[in-house]
Amino acid sequence: MASVREAFVLPSGVIYLDGNSLGALPRSALDRVRAVAGEEWGRGLIGSWVGAGWIDLPRRVGAKIAPLIGAAADEVVAADSTSVNLFKAVLAAADLNGGRSMVLTERGEFPTDTYMAAAAAAVTRGALRHRLCDEGTVAGALDADTAVMVVSHVHYRSGEVRDMAGLTAQAHAAGALVVWDLSHAAGAVRVDLGGANADFAVGCGYKYLNGGPGAPAYLYVARRHQALARSPLTGWLGHAAPFAFADSYEPAGGIARFVCGTPGVLGMSALDAALDVFAGLDGVAVERKGRALGTLFIDLVERRCAGLGLALASPRDPARRGCHVALRHAHGYPVMRALIERGVIGDFRDPDILRFGFAPLYTRYRDVARAVEVVRDVLAGESWRDPRHAARAVVT
Amino acid sequence: MASVREAFVLPSGVIYLDGNSLGALPRSALDRVRAVAGEEWGRGLIGSWVGAGWIDLPRRVGAKIAPLIGAAADEVVAADSTSVNLFKAVLAAADLNGGRSMVLTERGEFPTDTYMAAAAAAVTRGALRHRLCDEGTVAGALDADTAVMVVSHVHYRSGEVRDMAGLTAQAHAAGALVVWDLSHAAGAVRVDLGGANADFAVGCGYKYLNGGPGAPAYLYVARRHQALARSPLTGWLGHAAPFAFADSYEPAGGIARFVCGTPGVLGMSALDAALDVFAGLDGVAVERKGRALGTLFIDLVERRCAGLGLALASPRDPARRGCHVALRHAHGYPVMRALIERGVIGDFRDPDILRFGFAPLYTRYRDVARAVEVVRDVLAGESWRDPRHAARAVVT
Repeated sequence: MASVREAFVLPSGVIYLDGNSLGALPRSALDRVRAVAGEEWGRGLIGSWVGAGWIDLPRRVGAKIAPLIGAAADEVVAADSTSVNLFKAVLAAADLNGGRSMVLTERGEFPTDTYMAAAAAAVTRGALRHRLCDEGTVAGALDADTAVMVVSHVHYRSGEVRDMAGLTAQAHAAGALVVWDLSHAAGAVRVDLGGANADFAVGCGYKYLNGGPGAPAYLYVARRHQALARSPLTGWLGHAAPFAFADSYEPAGGIARFVCGTPGVLGMSALDAALDVFAGLDGVAVERKGRALGTLFIDLVERRCAGLGLALASPRDPARRGCHVALRHAHGYPVMRALIERGVIGDFRDPDILRFGFAPLYTRYRDVARAVEVVRDVLAGESWRDPRHAARAVVT
Repeated sequence: MASVREAFVLPSGVIYLDGNSLGALPRSALDRVRAVAGEEWGRGLIGSWVGAGWIDLPRRVGAKIAPLIGAAADEVVAADSTSVNLFKAVLAAADLNGGRSMVLTERGEFPTDTYMAAAAAAVTRGALRHRLCDEGTVAGALDADTAVMVVSHVHYRSGEVRDMAGLTAQAHAAGALVVWDLSHAAGAVRVDLGGANADFAVGCGYKYLNGGPGAPAYLYVARRHQALARSPLTGWLGHAAPFAFADSYEPAGGIARFVCGTPGVLGMSALDAALDVFAGLDGVAVERKGRALGTLFIDLVERRCAGLGLALASPRDPARRGCHVALRHAHGYPVMRALIERGVIGDFRDPDILRFGFAPLYTRYRDVARAVEVVRDVLAGESWRDPRHAARAVVT
């Protein structure tokens, strides 16, 4: 794993523990973006849609993501944002489950999961309804009217891993379908959509997949659903024959119908090249390293920062934890500002959560050890009390 | 205008007449993409969301597009694809016009306009319906049940310009709202959404705006509609306080609520930099040059290619024409392949249309004259009959 770090551009003087929010820059992505802009766009112009394979990017990138999430190559497509893909997946799943009216999400999930589930229900003008369940209770709310349940595989705040196979089986037993959000899981922990008999999934390209800021997202539809599943967003590039410019819509075969508009080639290409870093890597080893980094962090924090106001807000059991760790601190915001000033980059989530991500591909054990010493310095020395750290920026 | 050409990278030996499909590469966009990937992402990492202003890109890019389409800076946002924005605009407009059920589009429009209008109707499970009117009849179909009409300002195939002020007034008189598709207009002809009292508009970033392949699209909502207009795609970045991570959705004020997911920063940045080429340019001069190039092309084709099987498929009157010209030829596909092989790059649209775009910012009169000579050579010499030119690629 150590040599994989060489595949990334990492600024000196920084310990980057926010790869769970924005993955670091792979050298392959930087090279590709330069070539796509300068050569493929600049010199190839319109001919690059075929000549450079731009038109196939949604399926090609999807096929590269597939092995990271336990899917077949023809079950995944890269397109749009995670939010837009959630909308597609929820409505497509609900359509497969006609006669049922309820879409379930859970409080405390990443907000867009709930917002887009509610949006999918709202556009149907009452045919579907959305229910927001209390945290940890979504499976208990499954009943004979549940059409779709949306759950994250790894919780964005706590890092808790949900039991994909178990919850999927529970939903199926109740006659419901599940949309899994893999954003904080894929590229860090092993995901086995096929083994879990999953229905739909969505995920984000810019976290552990390192596709760059706002990288395209992806959508998974199990092969058994593909013949009947329809995207509600029937854009021209999901058409069976987009270049026939027909007045009537006929969906492309398979997963390709979940493409909507023209793909953003710069972002798609960066993600495509970033995924090459995963080629040949063993998912078991990646997950093991990410969790070992997190366990080391928790152990060192408890030894070195005892009595300094930190409390663990993630599962202690590594098997139940993704590759980030959340700590609570009553003054979390200025503490994180002070850490960032010292070169330890994590992030803050309201009201009091410090998140530290341990991207397995480029984070070293020594980075964790060093980061904990900086946490100790900042808390013990109270440098976070500097008034400069109190002012809230728009994004943290 | 001649010096503006210097702002673009243009390959030698090529006469590029497809800027209406994919605009050429502005040097500013190339420089920006390199800097965003290498510096802002590579070195700035997560801090660039605020430090490099990524988070404001949707509104900043929207504000740069605004003067090109006769809008105020706070009436335009860059986001998603044209297809997704059509969906948002049609449903938002229909919601403002509650009680009415019909969404109108016209045969022969760019397909995604019709597909997404139909999609918007379909998700409402019958509350809205979509009607596909015959070509040229959409305004005649307006009646007391029309909620929304979708029309392109410049027709993607023929280049015909629709009367934005007249059609908008006609729709308003019937109590309907209009969604304008500006994809083939903005950056080439003057667009005056404000002067036309327009309601909603969408458009594409990668044609005459030169934002790069699959560049983000944009959405316009007239200020008078903004207080009540709601996006049906309530992604987390359209929230009033996205970083509060609240379980309930509250739309941001104004146009910002039409942002959905996280913006694709590479594509947004390329478009942002590409738009700088328009700074200080006079829209009247841009439009005049684009139309003069088209008129010159038509004149020369009729003089130099008489009897060679070409027929004009665009309005002859430059005031009724955008900046591209369509010609019919019974063997249009192999003819265009032969032209491209000779370095004259236009495109082909089924069944028999050769399209030639005259992007005013980088096309010269001498390019037009030279292109017509190549058209004459290819047709008179029958080099298009080479069997190599008959095989259809996926995209032309």
